Amino acid sequence: MVRVVVVGGGAAGASAAARARRLDPSAEVLLIERGSMITHAPCGMPYAIGGIVKSHEELMTYTPEEFEKERNIKVMINTEVVDVDADKKVVVVKKGGSEEKIPWDKLVIATGAKPLVPRIPGVELKGILTMRHPDEVPHLKGHIDKAKTVAIVGGGYIGVEMAEVLLELGKRFLLFEMFDQVLPAALDPDVAGIVAEEMKTRGVELHLGEKVVEFRGVEHVNKVVTEKGEYQVDEVILAVGVRPDVDLAVRAGAKLGETGAVYVNEYMETTVPDVYAAGDVAEKVHRVTGRRVWIPLAPTANKEGQVAGGNAVRNRILKFPGVVGTAVTKFYNLYIARTGLSEKDAAQLGFKTQSALIKARTKAHYMPGAETVHVKLIAEESTGRILGGQIVGKSPVVASYADILAVAVQSGYTVSDLFFSDIGYMPDTAPVWHPLIVAARVLSRGKL
Amino acid sequence: MVRVVVVGGGAAGASAAARARRLDPSAEVLLIERGSMITHAPCGMPYAIGGIVKSHEELMTYTPEEFEKERNIKVMINTEVVDVDADKKVVVVKKGGSEEKIPWDKLVIATGAKPLVPRIPGVELKGILTMRHPDEVPHLKGHIDKAKTVAIVGGGYIGVEMAEVLLELGKRFLLFEMFDQVLPAALDPDVAGIVAEEMKTRGVELHLGEKVVEFRGVEHVNKVVTEKGEYQVDEVILAVGVRPDVDLAVRAGAKLGETGAVYVNEYMETTVPDVYAAGDVAEKVHRVTGRRVWIPLAPTANKEGQVAGGNAVRNRILKFPGVVGTAVTKFYNLYIARTGLSEKDAAQLGFKTQSALIKARTKAHYMPGAETVHVKLIAEESTGRILGGQIVGKSPVVASYADILAVAVQSGYTVSDLFFSDIGYMPDTAPVWHPLIVAARVLSRGKL
Repeated sequence: MVRVVVVGGGAAGASAAARARRLDPSAEVLLIERGSMITHAPCGMPYAIGGIVKSHEELMTYTPEEFEKERNIKVMINTEVVDVDADKKVVVVKKGGSEEKIPWDKLVIATGAKPLVPRIPGVELKGILTMRHPDEVPHLKGHIDKAKTVAIVGGGYIGVEMAEVLLELGKRFLLFEMFDQVLPAALDPDVAGIVAEEMKTRGVELHLGEKVVEFRGVEHVNKVVTEKGEYQVDEVILAVGVRPDVDLAVRAGAKLGETGAVYVNEYMETTVPDVYAAGDVAEKVHRVTGRRVWIPLAPTANKEGQVAGGNAVRNRILKFPGVVGTAVTKFYNLYIARTGLSEKDAAQLGFKTQSALIKARTKAHYMPGAETVHVKLIAEESTGRILGGQIVGKSPVVASYADILAVAVQSGYTVSDLFFSDIGYMPDTAPVWHPLIVAARVLSRGKL
Repeated sequence: MVRVVVVGGGAAGASAAARARRLDPSAEVLLIERGSMITHAPCGMPYAIGGIVKSHEELMTYTPEEFEKERNIKVMINTEVVDVDADKKVVVVKKGGSEEKIPWDKLVIATGAKPLVPRIPGVELKGILTMRHPDEVPHLKGHIDKAKTVAIVGGGYIGVEMAEVLLELGKRFLLFEMFDQVLPAALDPDVAGIVAEEMKTRGVELHLGEKVVEFRGVEHVNKVVTEKGEYQVDEVILAVGVRPDVDLAVRAGAKLGETGAVYVNEYMETTVPDVYAAGDVAEKVHRVTGRRVWIPLAPTANKEGQVAGGNAVRNRILKFPGVVGTAVTKFYNLYIARTGLSEKDAAQLGFKTQSALIKARTKAHYMPGAETVHVKLIAEESTGRILGGQIVGKSPVVASYADILAVAVQSGYTVSDLFFSDIGYMPDTAPVWHPLIVAARVLSRGKL
């Protein structure tokens, strides 16, 4: 009987544990989670803080008890794995005051990511909040509720989503982003400009191109200092990025990749025998470039967990083919989605690109209720291969447009392949020339 | 200077004319249309009859004058092409009482489709209405407005869409479909059952598996006779299917394919030199089976027109790769979309299939406003290749799900390829396990 120990109860870990159990009913499967929840959804945290989701406990899919009972998986919560010995095949866990050694035959490390905390003066002050685990929601809510003025530091996904939450809570806040655009890791400046316009229209005090260099205060933060000015605040949401939580993997002797995340092959094997890594802690292969990247997202974590868990009990039966970086966010009813490489990423990687940014409608011109969508499509100049796309518009359908494009991108489509794709039409769901098809045509520069 | 004559001002014809003009500014391009409108959208007719679209003239993208002026294309409306001589390269056109011979170097036949009128007794009676061209909207509206009881004969796309319109107009009506399900050409019975349930719930008198065998009346229809009964009605909407309008192509000497539509190669060339066909009049290649099919839909017509028009002036510069049969319709807020082969189609073609029909939500479980979607996925048993899918749900996002699947199907994806696709996620736009990914997993029968 094989014993599988999975460290981390989030998307990747829970998925790995469930998969191992499913494929090997005789295996002993143990899921160890530092917090109080498993199968939790950190992506839902802004909505729990904002109150759209009534309790952070709704962000769980299964309670630990349900998971134990329904899946026959032993679950340990509030339990930290403090050490690992990959030769002796044991982990050392700490729960409350006591430590225990737990043996394993296969170890899946799914320790996820943690907020990046920049080393700037005052960053250790109270009232500087990071967001990582749904567990923290009551704490965050408490701080935000009593604040008059908040600073959001970072204009990425969390920054944009929290901006909506704070506006809805009626808070005054300032959003600082060191780059000249919002969502710098996701979007090109032209598309990001559309998002920024909407944010300003809704009343966000956007400070783009303004790097925070210091926090000040006595015990509790009361001032944000940037290169350009000083701002009085009561609380700070620090959301400048995340880092893979590789401590345990390093202790296990696993090699880290060039991105700083755990190096894994397509079987989600680390460089240490019988040790797998999955989810935000692990490096991924980008299907457009073949390069190793670190794009920590929940759907990837789920699938990688599935692969790691499956392979832990049935050696190398599943392969993870990599990602194209499809991601979605929203600001109120403005949906923002992207896939593949941005134009600036592509340029940095040495691609010579062509792009088109078009404006189209979500329905036939004569149908009521259409929304405007902006579609940016990026292709390699020499081959016409689509490298990526970005879509923004006041319809959730934007997310699916990115998904259509994601499948095209991961399939190596050229602009022509996309143009001739058999995308559906009815007056109420799309124009007869679908926005993606129009973007392909425009990008073809007269060839289509 | 080449002279391109395009017959038919709908999607394919207008697209062909525009493309020829764009690629050859010196060409003489003439677009001949039997009706009074060009660039018209027959798919919008139900909404113009129902009043959501105020006037049928809104169903045009360009007026003939605009098209002439902006595109520098000569447009003749209310002009019928009554004959063609492919040796002498002339068409004979009739406008009002007079006939005229017009020479051409390249001819594009885009005469579209016409309603199928079954040879059953009484079918020639007044009050038996077919729907083909937006021109007819005032006429149809007039008839329907004064009717107390209407029969819709045919439960296809037009039947389903007109059912919504008639309900909204407060008409009593009966819908007859000879097959045991609605949308028999589009859906499998299990998925069609979900649509039928919704139609019944909304008050549609659905007569499935009930073939109409006779219409009765003195001059004007007043009775529909089926195999099962007789029904008093004032008007009949006859929507049992369409046929390619091949008369002109046949006169030109073009070969028809096995489907009865005009045989064309990937350049949209007919078997007659310098004669192209595009749109509903032409046969298509199905990208899943490689077989010739006749699936007349507007987005295909647009692209085929583009290819035909381009090739007419720049020999063989574009190829049309075929279709996978992606189509969308709706009944109120129930959206219905499909792509690829249905399970019954696949069986008929000799495929051994596996399928999964799952129920999922459009958002994360904790987000408000999620809708239920039903996803059916069909794969070839031996290879796992996805043959098609059908999606039904009360969200327009359903149409995009079919588009995602369409790209996967036309790319030859297996169930595993779909499962590992990098489809995006955020709580408000999808569950972390996207409905399509869940369907793939279920269809994998435990392999994923």
